[in-house]
This record gives sequence, structure tokens and C-alpha cells, in this order.
Amino acid sequence: MKYCNSKHICVTPRGAGTGLSGGALPVYGGVVLGLQRMNSIVKVDTENFQAIVEPGVINEVLQQTVKEYGLFYPPDPASKGTCFIGGNIAHCSGGPRALKYGTTRDYVLNLEVVLPSGDIIWTGANTLKYASGYNLTHLIIGSEGTLGIVTKIVLKLIPFPTQNSLLLASFASPIDACRAVSSIFMGGCSPSVCEFIEPLAFRLAADYLQVAFETPETVQAYLLIEIDGNNGELIAKECENMYTILTEGNCLEVLLATTTSEKEHLWKLRRSMGEASKKSTVYKEEDTVVPRAQLPELFAGTKTIAARYGLRTVCYGHAGDGNLHINILKDEHSDAYWNHEVKEAIKEIFRLCISLGGTISGEHGIGLVQKEYLPLAVSEIQIDLMRNIKRCFDPNLILNPGKIF
Amino acid sequence: MKYCNSKHICVTPRGAGTGLSGGALPVYGGVVLGLQRMNSIVKVDTENFQAIVEPGVINEVLQQTVKEYGLFYPPDPASKGTCFIGGNIAHCSGGPRALKYGTTRDYVLNLEVVLPSGDIIWTGANTLKYASGYNLTHLIIGSEGTLGIVTKIVLKLIPFPTQNSLLLASFASPIDACRAVSSIFMGGCSPSVCEFIEPLAFRLAADYLQVAFETPETVQAYLLIEIDGNNGELIAKECENMYTILTEGNCLEVLLATTTSEKEHLWKLRRSMGEASKKSTVYKEEDTVVPRAQLPELFAGTKTIAARYGLRTVCYGHAGDGNLHINILKDEHSDAYWNHEVKEAIKEIFRLCISLGGTISGEHGIGLVQKEYLPLAVSEIQIDLMRNIKRCFDPNLILNPGKIF
Repeated sequence: MKYCNSKHICVTPRGAGTGLSGGALPVYGGVVLGLQRMNSIVKVDTENFQAIVEPGVINEVLQQTVKEYGLFYPPDPASKGTCFIGGNIAHCSGGPRALKYGTTRDYVLNLEVVLPSGDIIWTGANTLKYASGYNLTHLIIGSEGTLGIVTKIVLKLIPFPTQNSLLLASFASPIDACRAVSSIFMGGCSPSVCEFIEPLAFRLAADYLQVAFETPETVQAYLLIEIDGNNGELIAKECENMYTILTEGNCLEVLLATTTSEKEHLWKLRRSMGEASKKSTVYKEEDTVVPRAQLPELFAGTKTIAARYGLRTVCYGHAGDGNLHINILKDEHSDAYWNHEVKEAIKEIFRLCISLGGTISGEHGIGLVQKEYLPLAVSEIQIDLMRNIKRCFDPNLILNPGKIF
Repeated sequence: MKYCNSKHICVTPRGAGTGLSGGALPVYGGVVLGLQRMNSIVKVDTENFQAIVEPGVINEVLQQTVKEYGLFYPPDPASKGTCFIGGNIAHCSGGPRALKYGTTRDYVLNLEVVLPSGDIIWTGANTLKYASGYNLTHLIIGSEGTLGIVTKIVLKLIPFPTQNSLLLASFASPIDACRAVSSIFMGGCSPSVCEFIEPLAFRLAADYLQVAFETPETVQAYLLIEIDGNNGELIAKECENMYTILTEGNCLEVLLATTTSEKEHLWKLRRSMGEASKKSTVYKEEDTVVPRAQLPELFAGTKTIAARYGLRTVCYGHAGDGNLHINILKDEHSDAYWNHEVKEAIKEIFRLCISLGGTISGEHGIGLVQKEYLPLAVSEIQIDLMRNIKRCFDPNLILNPGKIF
């Protein structure tokens, strides 16, 4: 870093390359700094429920390792089998369970960071609370590798919840499904997962995985709902309450996944939806997020805008958090249309999202791909603040240049 | 702000003035900007579990208001009856329930901030997830009014837990009490509160409130433990588990507060300990925080250091979070001793705290009072980063000057 900084050579940090906003792509040449060999789980501290890890640790490897101690690291992006904790920090990754357990941000206590100058700092302390000056830990989280290279991470862990139930509710109207999301919470349920899924997403994933999954024609949307905890009776009670709420919300049917393999089947389909969309055609994946009661307006508005532009979309995502992934499919559109007009459609969707109190990315970050849209969500004054903060850490602008702003 | 900025007049924002680090005291003259009249609860959004409030809203007023809707705003500093939400954001306040529910940071979604230039920004979106550029919301939280004036706040709320049990466990050895803290969690309990309290703290509070509270001579420490939830049976089960763990941890006795008035009595005593210490003599309140399994070493080390300096201390705090408030009492010491030698004692305590993975403030902030100690916890490089970040927001250094660094 010191050498690159002195010679003004660009450095692009790269984890597993699973990011969805192009944050790990070098734009101006220079060095790509691969973190995959910094993959040690340095310590699992069972007395303090903490882990110290390097950035190249795969999310699921960490999850499995701490589970052996009865501990839980909740953030679970769809790519958890391959993505790195370092990348999760760069984008403040979420995943389905963020609904109950929060995103990456909620589990990072302290970071060792190498600055562009080569100086090494720890951003905080290994403590659950911190009020000792500006919180540099939280500034680094979500900064997409533009402020420093994270080389060690102190994570908070929690006790592993021992039981869960998984429900799949089907709806004739996607708007009813969206509406049901806030009803669930207002009805006193606190699910660990509440995913909205369009039937097309299930069909693409089933094709991609070459497994069977029937989506009846009457069904226009699904909610995939998990309730977890440590008490079977309580979970069963909450499932009953959930069933009542969903039925009152015009749900067609609620299926309960009773075996581990049924649950895993549904999760495998859910986690493959991004890859499956990409395999089916060129696509753009948007990461809209709104207050969850505004989901019906976001969904309906998105479909109206897409129809106006003649675009097919497939939507799924973490509805309980108001986080809807909108995949726009290229299909037979020309490159020219795809590269110009479609951007206008995306802008319309983002403007709608922002007007509903939301923003343009909930968990994928801005990177390269969303950069041109950031000014829709964030004022020039804020972007200037970000640029100036960047200069505090990286005066020569060598670190992951061309990203975010 | 625009005028003051153009004339380089200092502005010190001030909430209720309940802070414990002197953050609201004007040091270099200029304007004290009182926020007490911006005290409107603008909206309680029951569909999205959110509230929009102004900074001068009293913490407890907000709690009571949202409770009427079955909603819960958990952060509960001891001063909750008088402190403002704006000040809570300035210092990232915690309180007893931060153990289960997190600190102020975990409940702030979006902030309207007036910058020293007079420009007004919203730092984020009204969403549960956010990955759209550097997180300015989290940078403002804990920045002690040095970066901008928070004028509107979008808060996340959660469902109000309907039931709780409160236990008071007494120990002959304070080290055993400290040790019991991590045993509780390792034993599978997840209390909502776990406070460590020295008998002297109870006695001072009882004197201050002029109420009765007996502390038998055999008792050298207490743990005040709350278990909450929505299911009485489950709470009872967890209390039983807690009882077993505490008994195995050499606890003398566990008392269960059975009525609301018994609970309120204990809470009133707990919340008065700071004021009661102050009333009894001149004191310095330190806000040490360590990983919770290191509490025994922090406590024992603190007592050893204090004894070496001939100082009486009274300790209490949020032990579950590893957050121990250490009150150093002046008693009959001379002003010269108090203002010079005692600082050396504090430095020794802080060095110990840092060597245990902790830091010098968990929830009170640095302000004026802890400023000289910050370099013990934070490197020169980090302080420079903070200074430079400050300049991005406040190039003329008019806003709350002389605080933190």
C-alpha cells in the first residue's frame, strides 16, 4: 500500500467477486489486491461470544464453525457459500435473516484497517458499546473498499436458535402478498425471514437447478416465511397466528415445510434466483428498499413502469425489510435499447422508490453499476461530503477509484 | 448557522444538559443553541414501526407515546425522564436494556442535519437497510454535536414486550458477581438487563431518595437481572435456569421482585446512583467498557489502582455489555490531589481497560471531560482522521469546538 500510494498506483481490493454492483472490478488498472488467502478464523471466543477473522473467510464457513460452539453469525447473503466476510463488510450485506437479526453492520465490533498510507489502525474496541470519538468502524462498513483495506475483523456472535418452521404462502394477487407483509408485523408476528417471490423466480431457479417446482397458474406471488427460536410450542403458536393473518390477507394456501430436506429445497431455490435470472438472459439487478408498508406501491409502480418500457421483470427479496430485488430481463431487446432507454426505466423506478421514503440500494452497494443513479438518492452536498471523507483516508485517491461517486 | 459560520462564531448545541462528559458546555463562548423547543413527536407510523421526532423530545415521553401503540423504543439511559433524543444520538446512549436491544445507534434510520454552512441534508433513508454510499447517519451518531445539528430523526420501533421478571442476586464476592455475568450467557440465558451494583451504590441512592434499602454486611455485590418477553411460562423457565447458574456461581441469595412497585423501587434506586454519588461528594464518573468476560479483571484492577491512590470508588453499570461505570469519590482529598494525582489513577484504569480489549467510553462520550484521555485509546492517526472528517463538515470549526479531540 505504501509503495502504491507513493507511486500513485491504483489498488482495487477484491474478495470473492460475488458482489452485485461491480465494486471489485478495477476500472483504472493498477493492482487488484486479492484477499482470498487471508482466510483464517483466528479465534472463536466462546466466553465473550466473539470471533476474530480475516477478510477472506467464506461467510458459510464462519457460520458452520461458530455453530459448533452453539453460536450464530446471522448475516446470510444468497452467495453465502462463496462470498467473503470482507466483501460483506464492504457492502454491509444482509440476506433473508437480516429481518430479525440485522445486517453485517450489527455484528462488526472492531476492524483492523490498512490505510492507503500503509498505516494500520484498529477502528474501535472489542466491545458491545462504543462512544469514544467518531465511529470509524461504522464508516468503514459499507464503504466498498474505498477508504482502507480491512485485514482483521472482530465479530459479535449470538446463541444459535435451535428450531425453526418454514412456511410458503401463495397469493393470487402480488399486491395482496405485498400488503400481507406489514400485516404480519402489525398482527404481532416477528418472523426471522419474510421473502417475497414471484412465480417466475421460482421457475427460473427450478430450471437452473434442474429440479421440480410447480407454480399453479392461479398463483401470482409467494411469501416464504421462517419463524425461529428455541421453543417448539411457541413457534407452533406463532405459525398459527401467522396462518390466521395470511388467510385474512387473501392468501390462497399456506404450505409448511416439515422436513429438513423440504426446507433446504426451498432455500436452494431461493438462493439460486439471482444466478438463474442471469443464466436465462442478460439482466440488471436492482436492490430497491422502502419502508415495508410501501411495498405494494413499489411493486405496482415498478410493473407499470416496466410495462411502459416493454420490459419483463422478475422480483423477489427481503420483503420484511422492504428490500425488493428487481431483476430487469434483456430478452430480445437491442443493446442500444438496453444501454440507453432501460436506464430511463431504472431511473423512474428509483425515483418512485425514493418518493416512498426508500433508497436505491439496501444491501448490494453502489460500486460501479449504480454510481450514475446515486445522485437521484443523495444530494450533491452529501456526495461532496463523501468525496471529502474519502480524501481524509486516501488523499491520492488510489483506493478502489471510480466507485460509489 | 449560516450567519455564525460566515462570522466564525462558535455554536454549541445543547439538549437537556444531562450528558456526563460536558459535551453541551460552551468552551469558547459564542452561541449556545438550545434544542428544547424542538420537542415535537411529528409522527408515529404504526404500519412501518417508525417514529419521526424532533431532537428535544424527552426519551421517556417518546417511550410512553409509542407504548400506547404497542410499540417500544428501547434505549433507556438513567436520565430517561429528562434527557433528549437529540443528546442520546450525540453520544450514542445506551442504558440497561441495551444489553438485549442495542443502543441508540440501532434505532436511528435517518437524520435531518443542519450543517455549519446552513445546508440541510437527510443522511439516509427511512429504511431498515441502507447501502447507498458512506453511511453518514452512523457517522453523525456519536459525533457529539461536532459535525451538524440534528433537527429531525426517523427512529425504528419494535413491538413492546408485554412481560418481565426482575431478579436481584447478591454475592459475598464482587469478583464472583463479575464472573457470573459471562456464565449467564454461556449458560444459555439472554436477559434483557444485567446490571452490576456495589452495595455502596444502593446505600447512596437510598440516602439520596430517602427510602429504605438494607444491604447486609455479607453482601459485597449485586446483579440486577431482568428477563422479558411475551410469554410468562418461558420467562419463568428462564428465571429457573438463571437461578441455577447464579447459585452455581456462588450467589448468596436471589430475590424476585413480584410486584410492579417492587420493580419500580429497584429501578428508581438504580437510576439514582449517578445523582446520589454526585450529591454525596465531588466525583468523577468513568464509563469503562470491556468484553464482558474481562469484567472480573477490570473490577479487581480498578480496586487495586484506587487503593494505591487512596481513593474510594463506587462501581455499577451495564455488566452484561461489559460496561462498568466507575465513580471516583473525592471525599477529603485536596483539590490539588484531585486535579493532578487522580488523573494518573484514571489513566491507569483506562490503560487496564484498553489492555483488556476495551475502551474509555461505552455510552457517555468523550466531550470535554474525557478528551485528555482519548489518546490512550485511539492512535494519533485515528485522531487525525477524526479531525479531518470534522473539517469536511465544519471547515471553520465553529461547531461545538473543544470537544472530543
